Amino acid sequence: MFEFDIQYRDGRARVATFQTPRGQVQTPMFMPVGTQGTVKGISPQELLEIGSQMILGNTYHLMLRPGEKLVEAHGGLPGFTAYPGPFLTDSGGFQVMSLGHMRKITEEGVTFKSHLDGSAVNLTPERSIGVQEALGADVIMAFDECPPYPADREYIRRSLERTIRWLERCQAVKTRDDQALFAIVQGGVHQDLRQQSLDLTLPFGTPGFAIGGLAVGESKEEMYPAVAFTAARLPENKPRYLMGVGHPEDLVAGIALGVDMFDCVYPTRTGRFGYALTDDGRLNMNSSAPRTQLQPLDDECDCYACRHYTRAYLAHLIRAEEMLAPRMLSLHNLRYLHRLVERARGAIAQGTFQTWAEDWARRYFRQAIPEWFRMALTAGARAETVLTNSVSG
Amino acid sequence: MFEFDIQYRDGRARVATFQTPRGQVQTPMFMPVGTQGTVKGISPQELLEIGSQMILGNTYHLMLRPGEKLVEAHGGLPGFTAYPGPFLTDSGGFQVMSLGHMRKITEEGVTFKSHLDGSAVNLTPERSIGVQEALGADVIMAFDECPPYPADREYIRRSLERTIRWLERCQAVKTRDDQALFAIVQGGVHQDLRQQSLDLTLPFGTPGFAIGGLAVGESKEEMYPAVAFTAARLPENKPRYLMGVGHPEDLVAGIALGVDMFDCVYPTRTGRFGYALTDDGRLNMNSSAPRTQLQPLDDECDCYACRHYTRAYLAHLIRAEEMLAPRMLSLHNLRYLHRLVERARGAIAQGTFQTWAEDWARRYFRQAIPEWFRMALTAGARAETVLTNSVSG
Repeated sequence: MFEFDIQYRDGRARVATFQTPRGQVQTPMFMPVGTQGTVKGISPQELLEIGSQMILGNTYHLMLRPGEKLVEAHGGLPGFTAYPGPFLTDSGGFQVMSLGHMRKITEEGVTFKSHLDGSAVNLTPERSIGVQEALGADVIMAFDECPPYPADREYIRRSLERTIRWLERCQAVKTRDDQALFAIVQGGVHQDLRQQSLDLTLPFGTPGFAIGGLAVGESKEEMYPAVAFTAARLPENKPRYLMGVGHPEDLVAGIALGVDMFDCVYPTRTGRFGYALTDDGRLNMNSSAPRTQLQPLDDECDCYACRHYTRAYLAHLIRAEEMLAPRMLSLHNLRYLHRLVERARGAIAQGTFQTWAEDWARRYFRQAIPEWFRMALTAGARAETVLTNSVSG
Repeated sequence: MFEFDIQYRDGRARVATFQTPRGQVQTPMFMPVGTQGTVKGISPQELLEIGSQMILGNTYHLMLRPGEKLVEAHGGLPGFTAYPGPFLTDSGGFQVMSLGHMRKITEEGVTFKSHLDGSAVNLTPERSIGVQEALGADVIMAFDECPPYPADREYIRRSLERTIRWLERCQAVKTRDDQALFAIVQGGVHQDLRQQSLDLTLPFGTPGFAIGGLAVGESKEEMYPAVAFTAARLPENKPRYLMGVGHPEDLVAGIALGVDMFDCVYPTRTGRFGYALTDDGRLNMNSSAPRTQLQPLDDECDCYACRHYTRAYLAHLIRAEEMLAPRMLSLHNLRYLHRLVERARGAIAQGTFQTWAEDWARRYFRQAIPEWFRMALTAGARAETVLTNSVSG
């Protein structure tokens, strides 16, 4: 269980399988976000059809509504949501910070007012693990503090140290063997703090490690050196999860730097706003041009929307405020990201990841590849590994 | 083409096949409404899976947005919407009356202001047929005037006479042989006016006839005698379409009286409002009870929602305002009506329609079967036929 077997490498990028109780997944992978027990607008059958492998559920949202007990009465998230494959739940920490009102952080945990009804709620490492055991995901996350950006260096340091004590408490109360608890490395965009967090976190030897505290408002120029530094220092033989990321360009850059798992609400959210992801960049379906275009959203896509609909039809649905529009654009965007990681896996397997990623970026960025992206590819090509363990499999 | 073959009869109820260019359908049937080129929230694949046979499109909506030319550029509604089966379009008449602002009715046609942008639009019999030929449905409807309820008798009389002159003009300009033009019988709830409309309409010998001008605000006690009277006087060997109807009880009562085709926005609209149709009546999923119920919406249903989800999960989606809720409730409600007509067809074939309908009603109305429903069943059992033509097939 939770075996992580690397099959191919290309620079720092790698293709691996990760064994979970509800089936094996292939990494790198993108995980659709099912915040409230549903990937917005998409059925489980559709998720399976577009190649979703693992679905993310949000502890914060689900504990507040409908409550973890009801989910548990369904046999956990698979029974509740009818998605039969693997799940990952976050710890609630990030959302307490971003959604909870009047939050108060102490050594014990976090007290906050629910964004739903203003009631006072406590979330501690113990409660987070209790909720996550009730939700029953295959991968659960340690309860951490994710400092905002920008934050005071000293605050980030104290916070990452507290996150370690919380990790200890998480491990202590965890009872289920069929759930992998991942630790989260913090440290903001500061290399020395990332190093400190790595030094304190790695000894826990959890079955996977997440890179937390990024994509919270910092620039890509600040974010990617932190991703590169942290990913290169995480164990080789464990999955690496870059939390809350990302956009297509983030997936390609993250994969280059050795990241295995991603999640983000972006594909479904931008779809609901009328944008379609393609290799040529983001297509604004709210503009006037698509209204008369008889080609699909994306010629190269095999999703239901691209196989059946013209841009003109989908643009009509958007203007007519028809529910099928956000549904179809969300479906396409998820499929786009799944196809993107599939193509990345194929390129890594063939040892052509760098060329593939450069070609992809030239088209996606329309010749204007940003410096942060180039640097991520360059760093990824070097295959520098620090603190590696032996590779299993 | 457009052959209507009756296979079974039971009282006035009948089971038949109706041949259209895009395939044969079985009647009695319920047609989901795709007002703006989509059955709200439901994909064509799902429509096929739940047993939809013919989809209704609205001429008024589609001519205003996106315009019939764009639909025509897609090869008509099947290409535009990706639903590969038969379509029916209404004439626009009814919606001009209910949605158009400042409408002015003359012998020529109707002038009104679009509900979208207030622009002035003309709709005439010629334009309605032109639009419907561009939309390319298998069955198209004559442009009629549907008086409101209540309306002055004399107005209804003048209006039904004008509807006949418009029918003449519709037939005169119709060019496509692969579309069946149905005439519409008007006359409000007045037997003598219905008779007058029948006398004037039947000689046109169209491949099907609709009963129009009902379900516009009159009581069921007024509506059903008009349905019974009109349906009994329509030709036996042509399909009979009761426009804009209905609720489950309307389908059963209408079938008893010899109606073959129904359409209504009710199943999708009530689904979006959180109501589920079942043999035990309409289930209010917004109430508190379903929040903890682990059984499906409807034990006897085979739709995706009933096969995969508990009431508690769906009630959670409703409270969380998740798009999957209206989608799944709409899907279930459509499947419920399709299953209802399937069961009616089975009972007619076995000669047990009356017993089946009574049993269904006792449960649905919880022992309090309304008088209008009883009378419809009783009238239907009598198999009185007036003005019948010979039955084909």
